[in-house]
Amino acid sequence: MSVSGRLLGVGVGPGDPELLTLKAIRALETADVVAHFAKAGNSSNARRTAQRFLPPHASELPLLYPITDSRSHPRYGSIIEAFFDSAALAIAAHLQAGRIVAVLSEGDPLFFGSYMHVHLRLTDRFPTEVIPGVTGMSACWSAAGLPIAQGDDVLSVLPATLEPAELTRRFRQNEPAVVMKLGRHLAKVRRALLETDRLASAVYVERGTMQNERLMPLAQKADDASPYFAIVLVAGRARR
Amino acid sequence: MSVSGRLLGVGVGPGDPELLTLKAIRALETADVVAHFAKAGNSSNARRTAQRFLPPHASELPLLYPITDSRSHPRYGSIIEAFFDSAALAIAAHLQAGRIVAVLSEGDPLFFGSYMHVHLRLTDRFPTEVIPGVTGMSACWSAAGLPIAQGDDVLSVLPATLEPAELTRRFRQNEPAVVMKLGRHLAKVRRALLETDRLASAVYVERGTMQNERLMPLAQKADDASPYFAIVLVAGRARR
Repeated sequence: MSVSGRLLGVGVGPGDPELLTLKAIRALETADVVAHFAKAGNSSNARRTAQRFLPPHASELPLLYPITDSRSHPRYGSIIEAFFDSAALAIAAHLQAGRIVAVLSEGDPLFFGSYMHVHLRLTDRFPTEVIPGVTGMSACWSAAGLPIAQGDDVLSVLPATLEPAELTRRFRQNEPAVVMKLGRHLAKVRRALLETDRLASAVYVERGTMQNERLMPLAQKADDASPYFAIVLVAGRARR
Repeated sequence: MSVSGRLLGVGVGPGDPELLTLKAIRALETADVVAHFAKAGNSSNARRTAQRFLPPHASELPLLYPITDSRSHPRYGSIIEAFFDSAALAIAAHLQAGRIVAVLSEGDPLFFGSYMHVHLRLTDRFPTEVIPGVTGMSACWSAAGLPIAQGDDVLSVLPATLEPAELTRRFRQNEPAVVMKLGRHLAKVRRALLETDRLASAVYVERGTMQNERLMPLAQKADDASPYFAIVLVAGRARR
């Protein structure tokens, strides 16, 4: 009889180590292997967040994206798919050997996270548990003290990569919105908010809950420079 | 010189006490007063979730909704506003006396929570901190092992109270969606999913992470009975 390992997708939250859940901390304590995603040449944000909770006996499995910018290579899609295939293979080898593998995920594992790509490749073959985490967007609206949605509101979570016309169409619905993955798209998002008369209700948050958090009304942000981990929060109908 | 208290909005997560964050637990330890919302005659879900972490010295301030069903009274809106006014007054009295008041919030405090109503009434007058929490929807898609959004997906969070035509319009966009606050609206949501050919990708989750969690493909749920704390998750484009 073979002893099967167990795959754990562990949400470590938005960056403040205090925002890990007890369940995530206890899961990490049981792990034989701790896997984490990062861009080649960088260290993992999720690992940095969870560092103090990593068990001393565990081995680590860094999963390093060969490229992260979809404009950088004509075959970006297939290169990334091959990367996830090989990440899943490396994890499967540990699971087949009966080990518990915790895959660290910034925020929540199944909400725009890298973890889901190995999850989909492995969950049919191995016992799997996903431990939800506090999302970056929750951290951002909490830091801003901005009630994002109430009552019968519809909340939209939009990637900043949408086409300008599509952003404008969404903003025109006059509903609360969270715009993620800003990076080089901030100027476009700002224009769409201006055009739909919603710039005044937009808040810009950079690195929510991390030590270098920045937070301001978007209308007061003087430039359009922005890291990937920035969010724009757009309040819905007038608040009391 | 007067010593001002501090208002803490504390997200206690979706129901499993292990899903509180360290930050929430430490915040509760500092509280002089722990406030929690419930329907009159009921005990608070958030209190039940956080019970083991409540400091023995703290006093409790139950905030009891006089009514919760908007159909139950012609003046529902003004009754509820008056209730939030009086809840804020009761909290303010403690804050003015220099006490730390922690308001427990199921899930995340500023995401469809009661806390936001006292937050908006008090945050200009008292130091305030909001501690984000794991949302009920994160718990549900984690329990279901369902990657809800990836890449350039747009995620919509819809209340089940929307009109049938509006639900149908939203589902037709063929994007991932979370339908909250099901209660007596499940039959309507099911019809809208059927009409837009998306019923097969819908998962029904009742009381995610709580001890009596139920989870199944919506198409296999034989009836339309559903508690308020049920969610339907609708996956977006085909997953690998």
